[in-house]
Amino acid sequence: MKHLTISIFTLFIAISGYGQTENQIKMDSIKTERFERGWKKLKEIDGEAGEKVIESLKDVSPDLAKYTIEYPFGDVYSRETTLDNRTKEIAVVSALAAMGNARPQLKVHINAALNVGVSEEELSEIMILMSVYAGFPSALNGTLALKEVIEERKMEK
Amino acid sequence: MKHLTISIFTLFIAISGYGQTENQIKMDSIKTERFERGWKKLKEIDGEAGEKVIESLKDVSPDLAKYTIEYPFGDVYSRETTLDNRTKEIAVVSALAAMGNARPQLKVHINAALNVGVSEEELSEIMILMSVYAGFPSALNGTLALKEVIEERKMEK
Amino acid sequence: MKHLTISIFTLFIAISGYGQTENQIKMDSIKTERFERGWKKLKEIDGEAGEKVIESLKDVSPDLAKYTIEYPFGDVYSRETTLDNRTKEIAVVSALAAMGNARPQLKVHINAALNVGVSEEELSEIMILMSVYAGFPSALNGTLALKEVIEERKMEK
Amino acid sequence: MKHLTISIFTLFIAISGYGQTENQIKMDSIKTERFERGWKKLKEIDGEAGEKVIESLKDVSPDLAKYTIEYPFGDVYSRETTLDNRTKEIAVVSALAAMGNARPQLKVHINAALNVGVSEEELSEIMILMSVYAGFPSALNGTLALKEVIEERKMEK
Amino acid sequence: MKHLTISIFTLFIAISGYGQTENQIKMDSIKTERFERGWKKLKEIDGEAGEKVIESLKDVSPDLAKYTIEYPFGDVYSRETTLDNRTKEIAVVSALAAMGNARPQLKVHINAALNVGVSEEELSEIMILMSVYAGFPSALNGTLALKEVIEERKMEK
Amino acid sequence: MKHLTISIFTLFIAISGYGQTENQIKMDSIKTERFERGWKKLKEIDGEAGEKVIESLKDVSPDLAKYTIEYPFGDVYSRETTLDNRTKEIAVVSALAAMGNARPQLKVHINAALNVGVSEEELSEIMILMSVYAGFPSALNGTLALKEVIEERKMEK
Repeated sequence: MKHLTISIFTLFIAISGYGQTENQIKMDSIKTERFERGWKKLKEIDGEAGEKVIESLKDVSPDLAKYTIEYPFGDVYSRETTLDNRTKEIAVVSALAAMGNARPQLKVHINAALNVGVSEEELSEIMILMSVYAGFPSALNGTLALKEVIEERKMEK
Repeated sequence: MKHLTISIFTLFIAISGYGQTENQIKMDSIKTERFERGWKKLKEIDGEAGEKVIESLKDVSPDLAKYTIEYPFGDVYSRETTLDNRTKEIAVVSALAAMGNARPQLKVHINAALNVGVSEEELSEIMILMSVYAGFPSALNGTLALKEVIEERKMEK
Repeated sequence: MKHLTISIFTLFIAISGYGQTENQIKMDSIKTERFERGWKKLKEIDGEAGEKVIESLKDVSPDLAKYTIEYPFGDVYSRETTLDNRTKEIAVVSALAAMGNARPQLKVHINAALNVGVSEEELSEIMILMSVYAGFPSALNGTLALKEVIEERKMEK
Repeated sequence: MKHLTISIFTLFIAISGYGQTENQIKMDSIKTERFERGWKKLKEIDGEAGEKVIESLKDVSPDLAKYTIEYPFGDVYSRETTLDNRTKEIAVVSALAAMGNARPQLKVHINAALNVGVSEEELSEIMILMSVYAGFPSALNGTLALKEVIEERKMEK
Repeated sequence: MKHLTISIFTLFIAISGYGQTENQIKMDSIKTERFERGWKKLKEIDGEAGEKVIESLKDVSPDLAKYTIEYPFGDVYSRETTLDNRTKEIAVVSALAAMGNARPQLKVHINAALNVGVSEEELSEIMILMSVYAGFPSALNGTLALKEVIEERKMEK
Repeated sequence: MKHLTISIFTLFIAISGYGQTENQIKMDSIKTERFERGWKKLKEIDGEAGEKVIESLKDVSPDLAKYTIEYPFGDVYSRETTLDNRTKEIAVVSALAAMGNARPQLKVHINAALNVGVSEEELSEIMILMSVYAGFPSALNGTLALKEVIEERKMEK
């Protein structure tokens, strides 16, 4: 894991390393604070599933990898807010289940929800709610995604 | 068909207390349990905004009015579940903000969320989360819907 | 109305009229067959509401107006097929109600459905079906669009 | 099949069986009427494909299984309405093809449509209509889903 | 390839060949001009990927195949317009990535974009833009689709 | 304008101003670099329309205002990339027209596109492309949004 972190950092520095003035470097080193905070948060919440997403972007779009760490995790998830991690993941799982067009991310966030203490039962309740607001197909597909995640977690143990 | 329409009208009127035939009462009285439970729940959660939705459906589709009371409220919202009303509304507001194609319902549920104790601050946090998962337009439109609801509630007082 | 038809034709010819070889002209004169067939079909099905849509496009995008007449109406609606106009409109209203992001077109096609013999009752049944497959918000918004169209038609009489 | 029915019933009773007052039991026994009617309707329309969906939910969300039987099938599909089963499935297939984010359900309902007498030709006509209202990608993906269902049905024979 | 072209033409003629009056034949022979122009354009832009789509529709919906060639390619892509092919594909890839429910078509058009001179870097920039307007899931899924296309093109060489 | 800038800055500082250590202040002052860069970019591209969006968020969600300036404009639009502003706006307008659920943002970006040199004709070409990929309703609604923007710009002069 440590290896990955370093390689992404190196990568990121490599990208932004051409012809920088000192001023830019200072700015980037601070950008790195958001990045580090985000990277830590991503690992805390999404765990390995999140790291794999970042890893998969490394060659094709290192900058999207960087932004994914910085904005969603370094900024948004790191906010000190009235919403705890459980509530955040309940909101995100609801959104992704309702949209119904982002299955890989739905599974990542079902996983994240379970990681931060949302129970399987609570997640299946959310899918029942979705039957009302996004229709039964979204509810069924969300519930089957939940089922897959539960099974994958069992196998990993 | 005519018969059914009439019986449903009767049912619906029964809420405000007008006479049913005995035959209808037997069938309806059981349906009416889900219906009554749903109607009570709808008023508890959505308040006047919810009643207006039902009222607006009365002429054009009394059966959709009935189902809206029975399934979402009589069944789903009435479930004794690990999710409290606050969490349910957080899930629903997230879903509707993310889909971005159901503004009237989003406003009804922002209202409902405020009714059951979700704070304005928590709702604006949810919209910030949506900027990540459904994009900034959904987040902006959700936040402006929140702003409208807050202003409407101020004026009503 | 005749006036409009002519002005659109003129417009269309004006657009494609610069420096054509004889070969192109022959092609365009036949394109006009699809156009004429489509224009007749559009008036038959959508009536005035459809004509207004075309009229509104005249300045900003005469070519989209042309394509709207040619492909949806000249080609697709003019197909001699096993589906009659009623069934076609039932399919289209269902699609637009389910997507929930094209209210003006939903209203045009609710109108069209009523024009070709689908009853108000059948349309409200379709919206009830949509509560299952696209969720209650889509069903409610579709039903309220139906209500508006019914009222507008009453006022026009 | 009988076996499955029983197991779901047992399941359902097991869930709602703790600490009921007599009053609740009476209510549930009537809920069971909707359930039975819905289960019969589901088998009539969706056939084996529908049963598999319910079976797949059994462990992860028996309540969503129950609601899927009760509301869509026990209530909506069981309505005595001016829409026959053919028309209903045409509406549902149109909605699911247009939304484009619920492929498993689209295939189940293409199957259902063929079961209740909609022809392959009619279904491909619907997809052509969708090219106009939801774009060519939805039309193409819907047509290829139709193709898959046709091939699967051939193999099953 | 020539063989396929001929077989589709034959197919198309076979379908529309029953009991035509002379007038219809004249019309169809010109329709064929749009068809030929479209078929040439489709091969120019989408290459083999596009031909495979058409081939896959041949049995199940030859008319959708015909329309796919005629309207999108014979009409729209063949327009002599201020937009060059590069810009067109940038617009189409953006649209498909944002909708997030048409992955096969997204891959076809990423391929098409690369065919007409859009660079891999430009495509990954577009996906970064999509993170803002359609959310990070659409951006990630679009970027991973880009990655797959790049890898498939490497293997084909 | 200057006044607004200052008030937003003050606002932003006010929010993050409680109990900061010196370290945090250093970080924030650099965050402010993204903010300043973003704010400048927002004014350059979206002009007054963009400023109004930010202004409208001020009371209800100053943090979403901040993020809207920082991520979309400070990060994404400020990238030194192979895509020029024209191409970026073409991509964004395509995405928003295709999604069809973010009309205010579509209008802001049609405006932005015109500001950075995309012509009215090019924008109407993009909408014609959308008729293929997102359906005629999206194309029509996008074209009518374009028409509104053109008229609003005429009136402002």
